[in-house]
Amino acid sequence: MSLQQLPGGVCAPRGFKAAGVACGIKRGDIFDLAMIYSERPATAAAVYTSNRFRAAPLLLTSEHLAAGTLRAVVANSGNANACTGERGVDDARTMAKLAGAALGCDATEVAVASTGVIGSFLPMPEITAGIEKASAALTVEGAAEAARAILTTDKSPKECAVACDLASGRVILGGMAKGAGMIRPDMATMLAFVTTDASIDAQTLRQCLRRATSVSFNMINVDGCMSTNDMVVVMANGDGPPCTGPDVEGFTEALTYVCCELARSIVRDAEGATKFVTISVKGAADAAEAKQAGMAVADSALVKTALFGQDPNWGRIAAAVGACGIEFDASLVTISIGGQLLAAAGTAAAPDEAAARLHMQGRDIDIMVDLGRGAHEAEIWTSDLSYDYVRINADYRS
Amino acid sequence: MSLQQLPGGVCAPRGFKAAGVACGIKRGDIFDLAMIYSERPATAAAVYTSNRFRAAPLLLTSEHLAAGTLRAVVANSGNANACTGERGVDDARTMAKLAGAALGCDATEVAVASTGVIGSFLPMPEITAGIEKASAALTVEGAAEAARAILTTDKSPKECAVACDLASGRVILGGMAKGAGMIRPDMATMLAFVTTDASIDAQTLRQCLRRATSVSFNMINVDGCMSTNDMVVVMANGDGPPCTGPDVEGFTEALTYVCCELARSIVRDAEGATKFVTISVKGAADAAEAKQAGMAVADSALVKTALFGQDPNWGRIAAAVGACGIEFDASLVTISIGGQLLAAAGTAAAPDEAAARLHMQGRDIDIMVDLGRGAHEAEIWTSDLSYDYVRINADYRS
Repeated sequence: MSLQQLPGGVCAPRGFKAAGVACGIKRGDIFDLAMIYSERPATAAAVYTSNRFRAAPLLLTSEHLAAGTLRAVVANSGNANACTGERGVDDARTMAKLAGAALGCDATEVAVASTGVIGSFLPMPEITAGIEKASAALTVEGAAEAARAILTTDKSPKECAVACDLASGRVILGGMAKGAGMIRPDMATMLAFVTTDASIDAQTLRQCLRRATSVSFNMINVDGCMSTNDMVVVMANGDGPPCTGPDVEGFTEALTYVCCELARSIVRDAEGATKFVTISVKGAADAAEAKQAGMAVADSALVKTALFGQDPNWGRIAAAVGACGIEFDASLVTISIGGQLLAAAGTAAAPDEAAARLHMQGRDIDIMVDLGRGAHEAEIWTSDLSYDYVRINADYRS
Repeated sequence: MSLQQLPGGVCAPRGFKAAGVACGIKRGDIFDLAMIYSERPATAAAVYTSNRFRAAPLLLTSEHLAAGTLRAVVANSGNANACTGERGVDDARTMAKLAGAALGCDATEVAVASTGVIGSFLPMPEITAGIEKASAALTVEGAAEAARAILTTDKSPKECAVACDLASGRVILGGMAKGAGMIRPDMATMLAFVTTDASIDAQTLRQCLRRATSVSFNMINVDGCMSTNDMVVVMANGDGPPCTGPDVEGFTEALTYVCCELARSIVRDAEGATKFVTISVKGAADAAEAKQAGMAVADSALVKTALFGQDPNWGRIAAAVGACGIEFDASLVTISIGGQLLAAAGTAAAPDEAAARLHMQGRDIDIMVDLGRGAHEAEIWTSDLSYDYVRINADYRS
């Protein structure tokens, strides 16, 4: 299927407006509140973090999404509204009410998201002012400012939009995401919002989203830490062609493309990252096992510091895979870096590692691990562990 | 039970000799080969890493330990003899043969251990010379040199010895260990060797060792990375009183003490560590769950960088526990740092965090997490994640 890349982010599909404003949650007039608005009721689906400390906005949004319809998303950065108890849920509810009142829709048609420091209450006067300001600023050119307003430690905004020709006509999808640290989603992801003009029912949309996130946001790992606030929301306003039957497959592919682009953007912008690393696991007995092995490599502080040091230290990759809980036969495993076979039959396979070392001097690094057990595979994206990751996270809250 | 600390490390119990020598595995005349020798056949037990890439010396040693008797341990640093296939096993076998010949015992009565870089073959000429040199240098004063000869990135040797009065008489235990990185043992540990003059059968000794390691080496976590070479060996030469019936309990307690002291020494000497952190998990439904929650906190790069930054960022502790897979009720969890309650009922509990911040400026930091589910608990020891950890591990192999 051919996809055509478009500008315009979440406003690329017709019928969506967006805005990003600075309302004082963060110091120094930095954008910290975003709004996405659908001119007509949109079918909606979402996935959330599986962290037991689920942040207040997620509790509220999953309640609002039960009906499968949304008109708007309001999202703030600078404060996660997580571990904030009843008061946090009340604050999230107030955000939805204020947005609903400003936009002329029901509060239950508003999804709420927050990201930033955990354990502090939202500054509601600033939030209130921000929602008013953003509602008034909504425009079809607002996607880029909205994408900026949800960032925390990210260095750059993350947007993507594509057009996709289905049998029933052309659908457009747009997306934005944030995230650079505390990234190891499971069943969900960091904040990401996807809009589309496809006409699709809520249940099908939910299935498409699960399939798309399983190979995109659920395959990235910056630092092994799962957030309390991960959320992906997709809104389909039905302005475009109906998406049923075989077109669901094509739509899922387009949605997967957008989610993968956004997921990779997160890893490229990972806290302190100097490398973008693709870990391909092959030869697994099933897909879950392939992911498990790849995530173990991505979790390893020793692998990640070796990536930073540009050292093809495959022994650390072997140690990580060996500890991941899969009962494989170590003598059947092969490990390659940059296409150069480094380990096979449980021991070193390369006379020298010069080619792998050279490959690792680039920004993009490819690691391949073949478990020698079956035909399943997975692709995981991760970053390296640098001095800057330590600096950013030793200082973040202070 | 009262334990009396003694000098002398692995040579504290009568009938043991040790030596540490430099044989050229490492550059620059640094100690790199250790030997421990028991004048008479000693009952022996061992536990090993559960990493699927089990290093050659472990394969050989577990074969030799099947009979439950040892006369000697030979251990080198600078090369792990891991991921070295058949040739690696042959090299380990040669080490045992050479040691047996030099000491006048059977090769199967020698345990072999290696630690260092993964994936390179042992330099056998140097190893051969080292075994000859160490055999000739064995002395009852050799424990400290042996403890130095097994170090890799460790800054200091780790030794411990105690006397313990059982009903049947006084037993003495001595131990040494190495490890500073790639420390997240499971079912086993880094290299540790314990000697005792207790008279105890092999099966009981095995049970005592399992109990001792489960609350010592298996409760430490420097960087979440499990080694291919973890091994603990205990040798009981029977020179002291018999250890049967109720005395087994007392002996296990003494063995546990030695293992805990050595395990804590590893964390105190962790790569780049500026903090020694005790994570106490209480209120768990069972012991495994308590350990799981504590290890999740110790695994978190965000918790560890906050420890380095001396920031009582309990939100990151909550996020780590919340992601660990236990289905607890977040509203029942409490989190304290340095005895100061920071979070309760799913939200912030402290008006300000000044006391916790002050506590974190010290070298030793106490974190307490109560899951509010039951009466079980666990204590995990970990370190922080600093610039130096990144520096050490980005550079290690080069």
